[in-house]
Amino acid sequence: MASTRARIAVDAMGGDYAPQEIVAGAIRAAAELDVEILLVGEPERLESSLKQHTTTSNINIEIVPAKGVVGMHEEPVVGIRRKPNASINVAMNLVKEKRADAVVSAGHSGAAMAAASLRLGRLKGIDRPAIGAVFPTMLAGKSVIILDVGANVDSRPKYLEQFALMGTIYSKYVLGVEEPKVGLLNIGEEPSKGNDLALRTYQLLETNGQIPFIGNAEGRDVLSGRFDVIVCDGFVGNILLKFAEAVGEIMLQIVREELPQGLRGQIGTAILKPNLRRIKQRIDHAEHGGALLFGVAGVCIISHGSSQAPSIFNAIRLAKEANDHQVLDRIQGYKERSTKDGDRVSETSLGGNSEQ
Amino acid sequence: MASTRARIAVDAMGGDYAPQEIVAGAIRAAAELDVEILLVGEPERLESSLKQHTTTSNINIEIVPAKGVVGMHEEPVVGIRRKPNASINVAMNLVKEKRADAVVSAGHSGAAMAAASLRLGRLKGIDRPAIGAVFPTMLAGKSVIILDVGANVDSRPKYLEQFALMGTIYSKYVLGVEEPKVGLLNIGEEPSKGNDLALRTYQLLETNGQIPFIGNAEGRDVLSGRFDVIVCDGFVGNILLKFAEAVGEIMLQIVREELPQGLRGQIGTAILKPNLRRIKQRIDHAEHGGALLFGVAGVCIISHGSSQAPSIFNAIRLAKEANDHQVLDRIQGYKERSTKDGDRVSETSLGGNSEQ
Repeated sequence: MASTRARIAVDAMGGDYAPQEIVAGAIRAAAELDVEILLVGEPERLESSLKQHTTTSNINIEIVPAKGVVGMHEEPVVGIRRKPNASINVAMNLVKEKRADAVVSAGHSGAAMAAASLRLGRLKGIDRPAIGAVFPTMLAGKSVIILDVGANVDSRPKYLEQFALMGTIYSKYVLGVEEPKVGLLNIGEEPSKGNDLALRTYQLLETNGQIPFIGNAEGRDVLSGRFDVIVCDGFVGNILLKFAEAVGEIMLQIVREELPQGLRGQIGTAILKPNLRRIKQRIDHAEHGGALLFGVAGVCIISHGSSQAPSIFNAIRLAKEANDHQVLDRIQGYKERSTKDGDRVSETSLGGNSEQ
Repeated sequence: MASTRARIAVDAMGGDYAPQEIVAGAIRAAAELDVEILLVGEPERLESSLKQHTTTSNINIEIVPAKGVVGMHEEPVVGIRRKPNASINVAMNLVKEKRADAVVSAGHSGAAMAAASLRLGRLKGIDRPAIGAVFPTMLAGKSVIILDVGANVDSRPKYLEQFALMGTIYSKYVLGVEEPKVGLLNIGEEPSKGNDLALRTYQLLETNGQIPFIGNAEGRDVLSGRFDVIVCDGFVGNILLKFAEAVGEIMLQIVREELPQGLRGQIGTAILKPNLRRIKQRIDHAEHGGALLFGVAGVCIISHGSSQAPSIFNAIRLAKEANDHQVLDRIQGYKERSTKDGDRVSETSLGGNSEQ
């Protein structure tokens, strides 16, 4: 899979602004990043979208035909099976056949997960895939990756342990954090705090020598910059993710409503335009691209359904980075080493407990 | 308990800024609201705090002696039992003895819960107390109450059903919402979405004729104003609450960092000072007072540990409103009626299932 230049399969038919904005983001990525783009979708519509961008040479873009799309209200697994030629299926097949290194999709995220699981399968030693989302923190330039933000509900402790391992690798090799700090999302700092899942996960994380676990992360710690990786069940992670996205928009709206009030407000706001744009950039989730699907045998970036060209561009960059830094091989390597060494608590002392 | 003028017992020793800020908030409440304040704590310290406020007549304030305080790092139940004369215990006793109508505390929230449960007991028909927090929404003037934000973890469906009922009553009679809309915090809108707790709670809420349930609320819906009451397990609610509090501060910090950048930034920011103050007010959680402990046989307001005078003032107002609108009697009334009518699904068709 390690080619010198990453080949990214882009699901051009998925998302609220498909295909125009997806194509626009892909064109920018092909021009600015060192990648080849396989644009997957209905050829006529993609040709016509491509033609609207006369300024760019489309030399690194190839169209791969697909027919249909799994709709936002279809049951994912049903949709994936019923439409074998849907763009998300064709994109996953490209990775499976090693014609592409990664997939980017802004379509139905459940469908993308289902297609990845069914067509690519899971990495060895990983029981459940997880969606990891990178959040900006209070500390400028520092991010935190939170997983799982929605692939699983009612997780078991050992799933969260695996999420912690995958998050650590991503933080280290893609985000470039030398010594990542891992936290467990919880309702208090003390090890005795939390629900049953948190209490049992704490014990696993604390005793796993491969995970740089520093303790519980409360809601207030998520964006503080104290943690590089935070693990949680997908139920709470998904609620947190969607809340965070909405809250950013609400804050911007409050600023937009209140700032220009009155004559002073109008003058001041006009003067501050460039600064306000920077504030929007720091708050806006669109700048951050997409979430990574961890644990499947391929690099998959799941973008927000409302993604426009800048988000798609960032998602493609994310896919390229995950590929270039060999995230999959490293996860696989860690898992194999840990299984060989037998130092994983969940598989040794607690391995016989099927409820674990 | 329904006196013409609410008597509020204020735990003057609890919180980061006790007793000075607590006393300051209580003095303002005594002057501006139609309440009597019972200030509970060490008499000498309270006398000396009171003396610092020469401008106000302290006619509606009485000191009730207490000794000691349950510390932030004490195990709540242990602390409550070991220190019978601690301010939180004395305050709860005042309500039990009908010398006060309500308690306000910014101390250890676990200790306040434990003291309330042990000394006041639960309302009939309520299995677990819940902490309800009122959040501002995007729609100016419209709030949403979220419960539980931390009293319980690993809740059962029938607890959430009871939370929904208590939240509905609060929304209707205290917040003045004519037809409250109740939502279940979840990861998707469809009834088929969610973890085991959410799936089973959905069925209870949907079939309970006393609860105006309109469906699932995703993370993005929390502050949208679409819902008046949102119920969830205390694990996710607590994480959401602490995240929301922190995010407001982070947003303000980003605005504070970026706005004054450069010469234009400095000029514009100076011009906009009053508008920025309004933005801070809309975002800042300190304006919103405290959380209500639902389900115990007394009105208890749990304020943030970092509460200063304005928050304490708001908390006392909240306590007065809950008392004046007879929230406890109404909850008790609903519960009794529903038990008589036998229309509660959890106690009829599913009543025999102890796992419920």
